[in-house]
Amino acid sequence: MSKLYVVGIGPGAPDQMTLRAREALAQAEAIAGYGVYVELVRPLFPDKEYLVTPMRREAERCRAAIDAARAGRTVAMVSSGDAGVYGMAGLALELARGQGVEVEIVPGVTAALSGGALLGAPLGHDFAVVSLSDLLTPWERIERRLELAARADFCVAIYNPASHRRADYLRRACEILLRCASPETVCGIVRSVGRAGERAEVMTLERLKDYPADMFTTVFIGNSQTREIDGRMVTPRGYRDV
Amino acid sequence: MSKLYVVGIGPGAPDQMTLRAREALAQAEAIAGYGVYVELVRPLFPDKEYLVTPMRREAERCRAAIDAARAGRTVAMVSSGDAGVYGMAGLALELARGQGVEVEIVPGVTAALSGGALLGAPLGHDFAVVSLSDLLTPWERIERRLELAARADFCVAIYNPASHRRADYLRRACEILLRCASPETVCGIVRSVGRAGERAEVMTLERLKDYPADMFTTVFIGNSQTREIDGRMVTPRGYRDV
Repeated sequence: MSKLYVVGIGPGAPDQMTLRAREALAQAEAIAGYGVYVELVRPLFPDKEYLVTPMRREAERCRAAIDAARAGRTVAMVSSGDAGVYGMAGLALELARGQGVEVEIVPGVTAALSGGALLGAPLGHDFAVVSLSDLLTPWERIERRLELAARADFCVAIYNPASHRRADYLRRACEILLRCASPETVCGIVRSVGRAGERAEVMTLERLKDYPADMFTTVFIGNSQTREIDGRMVTPRGYRDV
Repeated sequence: MSKLYVVGIGPGAPDQMTLRAREALAQAEAIAGYGVYVELVRPLFPDKEYLVTPMRREAERCRAAIDAARAGRTVAMVSSGDAGVYGMAGLALELARGQGVEVEIVPGVTAALSGGALLGAPLGHDFAVVSLSDLLTPWERIERRLELAARADFCVAIYNPASHRRADYLRRACEILLRCASPETVCGIVRSVGRAGERAEVMTLERLKDYPADMFTTVFIGNSQTREIDGRMVTPRGYRDV
């Protein structure tokens, strides 16, 4: 049967990939993906065939990968981070239906984990992951999720906190969180984990409101117990003393 | 400076570890951890010194690892999954404070991702991760989080759904979720990812209520858009058509 791997490659540094992800890429005859992510793996496998598509053409990219697999090639489609978290796995499964292509999902280290490790342990207790992108999700629903997450005292990892078109979305998100959470809540940002310009910074929720996030930033909001310890962001494993 | 790595080793299979995790273990002179996880890495590095401690003695385990690092050895403390998600990273940072030990957190593939990949793409949109263990967290707070997560239409990954002492906790959790979510909500369970007895199954929320989960099970609750596609659990990336 034709085979399509959907591979999460982690944050970008080759050593943050799992061995299984690397093996899937090694086995593939063709590697499909969005330009930036493909360029992260091309140096490791320079002699593969590459099917590169522009940003946001996800369905087109999936169909090209599925067609290549149907034509008899083993194909790996790469996502940054994990293949399932805002990644291509679901779309691949949907579009591969009835096409005679076996789809295998290879998980990877998503930004909540790679960025979290750089900051310390921001997600040491129950947490939520929320994307601020309103391309496919109405903004009202995103707002409601943030509000309910704050009321639940979840730690929150925010993906896609800003873009050119959405320059003020992180501010708007912080204002919603501040309805429930203290302005002193310990927060953190990471940027470009494992790549040039890597950066991690701990700050209060009040200060986060004015942070100039971009599309390479992941944002972490602590819960009521999160503390700063020696410059790291640490959420304890519970609500009682160790 | 003395060095302590806190390493997430992923679900258990050696190829689900990142290359960086493997390198950290290779560099360590001593490997610390709870017995079951240590046994997963011992075959890869049979000649290391091992500091094995029983379950639940987390602070003791951390102190032993920090003491070994202070004595001049490079030490790696292993967590299953990711080091930060209900793992040892936060405790290590807390207890290492002022001890002259550099702590480096090495992230790994947590069960929400490894189990998710096995099921399909259950966490393709915003999600929450909730542990049902009430050892360190009052049950009322766990209940409230589940209720708010369902109201927010988050996908939910449930860790520690049951133990001998907490045989009916998954049923109680499902009953709370059913206050907001349809009994037909697409859900899934995975068990022992990458190890003997690996299993993945898709079912409705109504049926999940009676599922005999154990401590090796991770549970996934879909959102209102989640569907079953060819036996896989798939949450679309948004609320609009592709």
